[in-house]
Amino acid sequence: MSRIDGRTPEQLRPVTIERGWSKHAEGSVLVSFGDTKVLCTASVTEGVPRWRKGSGEGWVTAEYSMLPRATNTRGDRESVKGRIGGRTHEISRLIGRSLRAVIDYKALGENTIVLDCDVLQADGGTRTAAITGAYVALADAVAWAQAKKIVRAGRRPLTGTVAAVSVGIVGGVPMLDLCYEEDVRAETDMNVVCTGDGRFVEVQGTAEAQPFAREELDALLDLAVGGCTELAGLQRAALDTVLEK
Amino acid sequence: MSRIDGRTPEQLRPVTIERGWSKHAEGSVLVSFGDTKVLCTASVTEGVPRWRKGSGEGWVTAEYSMLPRATNTRGDRESVKGRIGGRTHEISRLIGRSLRAVIDYKALGENTIVLDCDVLQADGGTRTAAITGAYVALADAVAWAQAKKIVRAGRRPLTGTVAAVSVGIVGGVPMLDLCYEEDVRAETDMNVVCTGDGRFVEVQGTAEAQPFAREELDALLDLAVGGCTELAGLQRAALDTVLEK
Amino acid sequence: MSRIDGRTPEQLRPVTIERGWSKHAEGSVLVSFGDTKVLCTASVTEGVPRWRKGSGEGWVTAEYSMLPRATNTRGDRESVKGRIGGRTHEISRLIGRSLRAVIDYKALGENTIVLDCDVLQADGGTRTAAITGAYVALADAVAWAQAKKIVRAGRRPLTGTVAAVSVGIVGGVPMLDLCYEEDVRAETDMNVVCTGDGRFVEVQGTAEAQPFAREELDALLDLAVGGCTELAGLQRAALDTVLEK
Amino acid sequence: MSRIDGRTPEQLRPVTIERGWSKHAEGSVLVSFGDTKVLCTASVTEGVPRWRKGSGEGWVTAEYSMLPRATNTRGDRESVKGRIGGRTHEISRLIGRSLRAVIDYKALGENTIVLDCDVLQADGGTRTAAITGAYVALADAVAWAQAKKIVRAGRRPLTGTVAAVSVGIVGGVPMLDLCYEEDVRAETDMNVVCTGDGRFVEVQGTAEAQPFAREELDALLDLAVGGCTELAGLQRAALDTVLEK
Amino acid sequence: MSRIDGRTPEQLRPVTIERGWSKHAEGSVLVSFGDTKVLCTASVTEGVPRWRKGSGEGWVTAEYSMLPRATNTRGDRESVKGRIGGRTHEISRLIGRSLRAVIDYKALGENTIVLDCDVLQADGGTRTAAITGAYVALADAVAWAQAKKIVRAGRRPLTGTVAAVSVGIVGGVPMLDLCYEEDVRAETDMNVVCTGDGRFVEVQGTAEAQPFAREELDALLDLAVGGCTELAGLQRAALDTVLEK
Amino acid sequence: MSRIDGRTPEQLRPVTIERGWSKHAEGSVLVSFGDTKVLCTASVTEGVPRWRKGSGEGWVTAEYSMLPRATNTRGDRESVKGRIGGRTHEISRLIGRSLRAVIDYKALGENTIVLDCDVLQADGGTRTAAITGAYVALADAVAWAQAKKIVRAGRRPLTGTVAAVSVGIVGGVPMLDLCYEEDVRAETDMNVVCTGDGRFVEVQGTAEAQPFAREELDALLDLAVGGCTELAGLQRAALDTVLEK
Repeated sequence: MSRIDGRTPEQLRPVTIERGWSKHAEGSVLVSFGDTKVLCTASVTEGVPRWRKGSGEGWVTAEYSMLPRATNTRGDRESVKGRIGGRTHEISRLIGRSLRAVIDYKALGENTIVLDCDVLQADGGTRTAAITGAYVALADAVAWAQAKKIVRAGRRPLTGTVAAVSVGIVGGVPMLDLCYEEDVRAETDMNVVCTGDGRFVEVQGTAEAQPFAREELDALLDLAVGGCTELAGLQRAALDTVLEK
Repeated sequence: MSRIDGRTPEQLRPVTIERGWSKHAEGSVLVSFGDTKVLCTASVTEGVPRWRKGSGEGWVTAEYSMLPRATNTRGDRESVKGRIGGRTHEISRLIGRSLRAVIDYKALGENTIVLDCDVLQADGGTRTAAITGAYVALADAVAWAQAKKIVRAGRRPLTGTVAAVSVGIVGGVPMLDLCYEEDVRAETDMNVVCTGDGRFVEVQGTAEAQPFAREELDALLDLAVGGCTELAGLQRAALDTVLEK
Repeated sequence: MSRIDGRTPEQLRPVTIERGWSKHAEGSVLVSFGDTKVLCTASVTEGVPRWRKGSGEGWVTAEYSMLPRATNTRGDRESVKGRIGGRTHEISRLIGRSLRAVIDYKALGENTIVLDCDVLQADGGTRTAAITGAYVALADAVAWAQAKKIVRAGRRPLTGTVAAVSVGIVGGVPMLDLCYEEDVRAETDMNVVCTGDGRFVEVQGTAEAQPFAREELDALLDLAVGGCTELAGLQRAALDTVLEK
Repeated sequence: MSRIDGRTPEQLRPVTIERGWSKHAEGSVLVSFGDTKVLCTASVTEGVPRWRKGSGEGWVTAEYSMLPRATNTRGDRESVKGRIGGRTHEISRLIGRSLRAVIDYKALGENTIVLDCDVLQADGGTRTAAITGAYVALADAVAWAQAKKIVRAGRRPLTGTVAAVSVGIVGGVPMLDLCYEEDVRAETDMNVVCTGDGRFVEVQGTAEAQPFAREELDALLDLAVGGCTELAGLQRAALDTVLEK
Repeated sequence: MSRIDGRTPEQLRPVTIERGWSKHAEGSVLVSFGDTKVLCTASVTEGVPRWRKGSGEGWVTAEYSMLPRATNTRGDRESVKGRIGGRTHEISRLIGRSLRAVIDYKALGENTIVLDCDVLQADGGTRTAAITGAYVALADAVAWAQAKKIVRAGRRPLTGTVAAVSVGIVGGVPMLDLCYEEDVRAETDMNVVCTGDGRFVEVQGTAEAQPFAREELDALLDLAVGGCTELAGLQRAALDTVLEK
Repeated sequence: MSRIDGRTPEQLRPVTIERGWSKHAEGSVLVSFGDTKVLCTASVTEGVPRWRKGSGEGWVTAEYSMLPRATNTRGDRESVKGRIGGRTHEISRLIGRSLRAVIDYKALGENTIVLDCDVLQADGGTRTAAITGAYVALADAVAWAQAKKIVRAGRRPLTGTVAAVSVGIVGGVPMLDLCYEEDVRAETDMNVVCTGDGRFVEVQGTAEAQPFAREELDALLDLAVGGCTELAGLQRAALDTVLEK
């Protein structure tokens, strides 16, 4: 039973994680899941938003966006429309929550890290690629802040690792890491965010064509946990290489 | 082990579903889950959005909003701010998807039903109360459209029923239908939308304080399915009474 | 000469004023003038807008809005359109000015009270119902602030009472408190805001179909003063009951 | 008892009405009430807004605005702020309603006239100067449309004339046509729009400092009718001169 | 070889510079280049934008706008559209840069001058008329600030004079100061801003119909420098007269 | 006399033009001028904007944007701010005009090509890199449209080539293709757009620190023409390679 692109149901697309993509950002990663390419940059600034001042705690947030021609047909720019769409809001919030799940605000101190995830090319799974890449950019930014003493000596703002993957039921078969064509045809679509030790940060499942049963849900969760574990390994490998910048 | 308001972990708050609340709307329900009160109106219009014209298929969409003082401290109006916030977008989209899961577009014909869910008073679980109430308003609106022959004779646009409930882990204990105070303290928070026959339409779980394990997820799903089944019974009972309008 | 709904020309619709509607707001009233229902909440916050800081004086303001399906056909949400319409602006400003006419800013101290008037169901006269209900919510909020010592002991921020009613000439006959159907057919339409002692706070008369003569204006003013006096009695009665909250 | 600028209470400021100010517009007037100067242009376009198409009836509307430094201290541009303020909306609507009161839509045919009233310099009474000047620009635009046969032969779209003036109680004395300094100190402020035959189109009275009694209201209405009659004479005189363009 | 309006190719239109047009602004000029009329006001405020605080340096900025019926057909107001168009942005920025070229920020001290350039009537060359007039309003505002001791004694914030003119190639002939009809037909269009001593502040040339050669560019620059020199003389003459205000 | 990065004054930075970067767009180029990297995509759609329908002519337009962390410090997203800034507008318009200078609308037929130029990394000269890269993407898109018969056989929509470069005076020395650090210190800054045959499409020079003399302008124009000629050669070379896609 082979898929559109020849993969087995439980197989990820080829994943690459290219660190140090940008000369300006404190952390930057060009991540690709197959033809999906997302540029993730992490920007560190001292200080926190007003509502958090004086708390001694830091903040991590994210913004997701797609270039107009990242997709098959050109989409209007949200800057030109003058408003952020619901989908963009939703994904930005998801990425932010996912990364905050592995942040110790106290250890970060009153500093802010903004993750910008800009989709350069889309082929399904842009939000999960974004989370997976943004984690690596975040790790680089945290290391930078530690080296610069912006984070106090001995503090470890990162409490774990986080990665994400999509799963879905296509033609009755639960599959890992859907590409766009599979995503369009999926009866059920789920995005799962896991920590490196296999626990859940987010589970978002949606019945596209028809409601799904508990067993289907269980099968999808199994696939997703496997995929996230594999991605955690790739993140670790990427971070283990020495980055010359 | 009793809760803040004396309930057991697997107990819903008192739920009321008041049909025919508005004299203008084709369907209207004032739903309450404890102190959470949401006014749900269903508006039927002939015709569909431009992108759907000529398809022979209908459309169902939803808009969620909160009155500024529905909450404990007053929030700014989104109309005054000039933009819809991310949370509002996200919930509006969730309600729309949930209701579309039980709609047969072909049977509806080229008609549009808009569900407006306005939170008059908030005490946790506003989105799940909104979905549960909106389903009943939708059912009334569909019946109205059938009676007015806007939906063709013999067509049944509703393919099932849908209800929603929140679950969460508070102080280590999985609980059903969190009130605001529980929600704030929850380590994990999940919203589950089910059809009347116990299948899933949406599952959205978020680790608030720390990632959750598979067994916790399973316990929460069990609780949620039970709650939705109970709500489906209350919806049925509400729809079975004769509405004099 | 009887009206659409059987009233005499100088008769108000049935008016109800339900205090303590909301568990969160410092003052809250569900007011109805016949089928027109407006939820009025008063929110007290310590401090004043920037331009008033250090003056020792308080501020009272109002925001008016209509639920999308408060009316016979659904209107687009102003939050979705991204801008407040002229009518909404105009009515919000009218309500604010009307309530400020009975406020002693010095006695209020540097505190702000915001009145939110949300029309749940509309059948003509929504702005006059809003003013009449908002006054009662304001009175409750002031009493709350006095009890909480936010307003200094001995200070009386309220200098009088205020109510409002619409009048108009329909089929050549001056009438009090127009319902929607009468309003649509009115040749002249006037909203009058009076204090409890029968003086004017606002007079806004508009020729809809044709200009009106001085005698017609005089007859409308007579009717309006009578209506406001009656409403002042209903406000007093509502405020005289003990509110258990 | 003389006023700030030496006038008697029932005296208008010097009023000038300069027709044909603009080379482009179908009607254009630079009107001044003392130091208040408003440029009013009338633009004729064939066709009507969508909601009026096929009715055989025309439309007249108005937009009011102030240059940023028309006033004593510079105000931010509404175009830069990205939204029209409540006051601007309110005045634009008032001007539009006032002019529509003397328009026969059927006679106008499916044509639209837009009146732009831009305040070049403000010294109180900008909305009343705008209405008074805009009427003259409208009359010129209607004459132009008749000459161009855009309005059918024999049709008379104008059913009368309209002018406006402010009145107020300052230091206990009812006064006509307040300048800015008087306006700021007025206890009561009223704008009155009358037809040339002395009937009312709009009456908008507001208690600024304290509620006003019926006798005060009556005195103000008397003053306003006198002022509007005088303005109607000036409009007639301006329109009687031959305009060389 | 005579032009549409009888001028020679190197001839300016009749230029008038009327100072002291507004009673409120610290500097104000009604400038006309033929039928193009722009009202330029200069507003002085103590203090500077946040990003410049504490620098000891002042700021000068400009906003350009057109009245809706300044042109042959009515344009929508940018305030109503809710956004500033690209052309408006571009011209506002150009005017601001041009004036800042002759400002010594240190000498100005922490004060801000805003130039508002509102086109009352347009017939080509509105941006160049705006710069030329705004310089004179700026000079008056600086003199006012010196007289009021807002600028410290002995400081000279103006380091020179600045004027602007359009040039273009119409029908193969390089021409100075294009009117609208010439502008529309121009193959190449250039706006040049010069100081009074003949050096360049801005050069903006655009090929409208086809790319232009170096010799054409040179001819246009020659014409423009001549025009700016003539305008500088007119500015000086205007500023040399005694302004009674 | 060597520059910050070792170049001579008349030397370009290393320029790369990578065609076929995106799998979706009809033309796509990743262009780099040193560390400045811009992704240019060309999107072809049949049909033209409403104002051009029925003309038989096509349309070409451009949108420029910068990723938030393309620069040294993070900038707010314009989509989040809800409005396009003046600089963005200005550059988008410049790119559009530059490309339209080499388009024959008739030959293009009623088709639209949108060029999206997104700056991934900025180091000065982003607009000139964008124009240079966008031309190549445009050429690929036109070839695609010809191959797909969207452009009629025998028609040649491209009438020439176009490239752009910045020049400036830094420390008194005229220099070609400024990097960010040079740009910041430049006394005069100019962007020049030329066709492949050395004629001018746009010339935009701005005095940053002080006005510039005619000889300086002449020296800058000489440098720019040389740079554009060199860029035209690189564009030709890039287009001459066979693109496998």
